[in-house]
Amino acid sequence: MAYATLILLRHGESLYNKENRFTGWTDVALSQKGKEEAAHAGELLKSEGIYPDICFTSWLKRAIHTAQIALEKMAWEHIDVCRSWRLNERHYGAWQQRNKDEVRKEVGDAYFLSVRRGYDTPPPPLNDTDYEALKHDPKYHSVDVSLLPRSESLADTRRRTSVYFEESIFPQLRLGKTVLLSAHGNSLRALVMILEKLSPEEIVKREIPTGKPLLYMFDESMNMITEKKEL
Amino acid sequence: MAYATLILLRHGESLYNKENRFTGWTDVALSQKGKEEAAHAGELLKSEGIYPDICFTSWLKRAIHTAQIALEKMAWEHIDVCRSWRLNERHYGAWQQRNKDEVRKEVGDAYFLSVRRGYDTPPPPLNDTDYEALKHDPKYHSVDVSLLPRSESLADTRRRTSVYFEESIFPQLRLGKTVLLSAHGNSLRALVMILEKLSPEEIVKREIPTGKPLLYMFDESMNMITEKKEL
Repeated sequence: MAYATLILLRHGESLYNKENRFTGWTDVALSQKGKEEAAHAGELLKSEGIYPDICFTSWLKRAIHTAQIALEKMAWEHIDVCRSWRLNERHYGAWQQRNKDEVRKEVGDAYFLSVRRGYDTPPPPLNDTDYEALKHDPKYHSVDVSLLPRSESLADTRRRTSVYFEESIFPQLRLGKTVLLSAHGNSLRALVMILEKLSPEEIVKREIPTGKPLLYMFDESMNMITEKKEL
Repeated sequence: MAYATLILLRHGESLYNKENRFTGWTDVALSQKGKEEAAHAGELLKSEGIYPDICFTSWLKRAIHTAQIALEKMAWEHIDVCRSWRLNERHYGAWQQRNKDEVRKEVGDAYFLSVRRGYDTPPPPLNDTDYEALKHDPKYHSVDVSLLPRSESLADTRRRTSVYFEESIFPQLRLGKTVLLSAHGNSLRALVMILEKLSPEEIVKREIPTGKPLLYMFDESMNMITEKKEL
């Protein structure tokens, strides 16, 4: 019997995924398929009888709605929800909103793959206009401007997410809670890297499934007793 | 210029309102009209440029969804949300789910009105079966069973809501936050009674509008500088 459980849920298809575009911090809604994936995730959790005590999401609506839809499906909408920009997807800099195939043709395979599958290569930074727009987005006014990225490698994403895991999520697990975390491929990769003590080479090969809850269970000393149980 | 702002939002029409039934703690969804009222409330707040820092709701989905719909309309979904059973609607005991006209015919005008428009008359209590069902509802497992009501007068509702106002909502206002509270006719009445220092006779006559945000603004000493500004 687990003392605490962490449920990782990666959002399903967004409108940009469907159009093969880089998303990053662009705030794009779920597609119909993405909504169905979220509902299915809720059904899986319900059928296993796994009811979270608290929910965490990024500030991006595809993760926010994924949690809302899954919890509605479970008839379990009354729990508190904490959100942070630190759980946002990796920032994809100047490539955000662009078609992936077009970018690949433009920059060449080697650089493209070092950004996408490497650990510490960021994509090119946001231009000044787009960076100013981010800094002046009222949503991000509460964030220290020096922390707002112009682009990120996976290593950068790990650095800013790990602060939030330590300060906000792990304390809930230490209290014995069941925690639902609805987020993104790379912010969840950063957490999986920490939980499973993976190397950069290992984490870049790890795919986080969409719409399928991943469970990590802990005993009272916060030793992991079940690693990555996929529902 | 206000230091802190409290936005009260009463949910709009639910499926039971539409059917003229007592709702109380019954967890009934919004009707289409209720969803539109919530969206309109979001539009009003957006047009006034009033963006909350934090949101509070009851555990009932008509209040939960009202906040979600309003915040989605504002493109302001990234704020933390805290929820409590203490913000639930007044518990309507054995009358819950029943048609209001039928109950009135059955119990007579005098008793009916003393419950509906009086301050300290509760409706008849839940029967044992329904009370056991409430106690065994997994949602309410985290609540001390001695606190779960079998029915409530408005005075009872005030007693259990005021604990939450003091412990969770007022502290946010003291920090200078803009707080959105999405709740119910009677849990909001209890708060209005406290804020405006109303007598029992005054509060039972006060109607809280549905879907129309009410604003209370405070200075740094928590003196109210604008009372009940209806958008």
